[in-house]
Amino acid sequence: MQEKLGFIGLGIMGLPMALNLRRAGFTVAVYNRTRERAQALKDAGAFVCQSPKEVAEKTDIIFTCVSDTPDVNEVLFGKDGVAAGAKKGSVVVDMSTISPESTKRFAANLKMAGVDMLDAPVSGGETGAIAGTLSIMVGGKEEVFNRVLPYFQKMGKNIVLVGDNGAGQVAKACNQVVIAVTIEAVGEALMLAEKCGVDGRKVREALLGGFAGSKVLEVHGNRMLNDDYKPGFKAKLHRKDMGIVLDTAKNLQLPLPAATLVTLHMDEIIKQGGGELDSSAIFKALRKN
Amino acid sequence: MQEKLGFIGLGIMGLPMALNLRRAGFTVAVYNRTRERAQALKDAGAFVCQSPKEVAEKTDIIFTCVSDTPDVNEVLFGKDGVAAGAKKGSVVVDMSTISPESTKRFAANLKMAGVDMLDAPVSGGETGAIAGTLSIMVGGKEEVFNRVLPYFQKMGKNIVLVGDNGAGQVAKACNQVVIAVTIEAVGEALMLAEKCGVDGRKVREALLGGFAGSKVLEVHGNRMLNDDYKPGFKAKLHRKDMGIVLDTAKNLQLPLPAATLVTLHMDEIIKQGGGELDSSAIFKALRKN
Repeated sequence: MQEKLGFIGLGIMGLPMALNLRRAGFTVAVYNRTRERAQALKDAGAFVCQSPKEVAEKTDIIFTCVSDTPDVNEVLFGKDGVAAGAKKGSVVVDMSTISPESTKRFAANLKMAGVDMLDAPVSGGETGAIAGTLSIMVGGKEEVFNRVLPYFQKMGKNIVLVGDNGAGQVAKACNQVVIAVTIEAVGEALMLAEKCGVDGRKVREALLGGFAGSKVLEVHGNRMLNDDYKPGFKAKLHRKDMGIVLDTAKNLQLPLPAATLVTLHMDEIIKQGGGELDSSAIFKALRKN
Repeated sequence: MQEKLGFIGLGIMGLPMALNLRRAGFTVAVYNRTRERAQALKDAGAFVCQSPKEVAEKTDIIFTCVSDTPDVNEVLFGKDGVAAGAKKGSVVVDMSTISPESTKRFAANLKMAGVDMLDAPVSGGETGAIAGTLSIMVGGKEEVFNRVLPYFQKMGKNIVLVGDNGAGQVAKACNQVVIAVTIEAVGEALMLAEKCGVDGRKVREALLGGFAGSKVLEVHGNRMLNDDYKPGFKAKLHRKDMGIVLDTAKNLQLPLPAATLVTLHMDEIIKQGGGELDSSAIFKALRKN
């Protein structure tokens, strides 16, 4: 018997992800706070529900993809939330990027109701969501991972079970640290070239083939050189993720000096109205010095 | 008529680079302060000279690969230096990593004697030097670059004319900034994973395929996870290069906060006796917190 899938949160990421599941032929029920966002799914043959609770009642595996920790809490445990409708033996797969600690608590709460949980945040942006080529970082039990894997494979390519509940969110936090600090690395290097009167394009070209090579140098380096910050991944969202990183580190009494520094640069460009720009726009914060 | 090549400085990098030139069939004359280092070249059929001046007298294109700015100054303009022997129309190609500003001065001084100069620092380490797969970042005139290119191609793969004299050194400085700060990026991420009790190997695996992917994550990430810091590129040499970076930036009144931060971490592990370790050992400075 084929499992029925639910999808809650049809934002920039969730909408194409849910569409990929539906187009792969699965039965899909969806919910979104703003009803109009569900139209594309309805047109593709998905059933549109009135609440997260109804999604949970009608399906076996419930994907959630919302903005932040409080949103996941509300969708799962609020009035007419998933927990109120979920059957024993069903699975909640949270693909939002939220706090690892809260994720562990959510998983424990669902477990008491006989519901398994995976945290499965993604990387790869809207382009990756549409193409079905997202990186998916998963936390949870192996047997639950194996049960959900065929559906992950319709949404992503590089799918890794990182560890137990919360480990997917930890990997995503690490991902955001590496990207943010590498943006700073490339930004400082290109500023140095610029101030020395040397063509940054040639520097990027010289560095790409060697040990300094990275996806960030390739893609964001280009954005900086062209002064073109169409997102991509918005600075305000990267900042939200860095908030999760720094909160988590603070609770562990772990200093992350470079991650903290880049977050300050992000705050700077957001304050200047750059929150909707790609997060590589922190180059503008470096340049103004 | 084939041009005769000179090579001064047969260290960890210079020795295999000079050997690659000789083995490609070119006439090569060499000089090294410590005479024994020249034996391998002698065995391969190179002529061993008594001074940089003698190398310059006997050859048309003189490569130098020594430790730091004062060493290049001494080799070029000291007693029995290259400038004392170089013929009009010959070329000095400095493959050391030194100050961009001093490089411009050296080039101007040589120019007055009718000698052209290229700065051509490399990246890729001893492995790349032996294999002839170095990245070579070149500063100087295009016609001089074209004249030397056939010889560069015996030593490296990714060979880019970045700009005028000094631009190769600027690119190398940028290269060292990107690598240093990306090491910090990967180090902070792996520390976060470790403190969260999550397997760093799985995090590295999850991140490698996506936007956080880089050579540093691949190679140095592995070094950090295995706590194995056999160089590679020694921390004390990376620190020397960061000194060039920070001096250059200071003269331009350009703040490079993350590059400065990583340099402090380097100082820390060098103070603890880690100067001979690979520069990714700054992970040890993060871990001790």
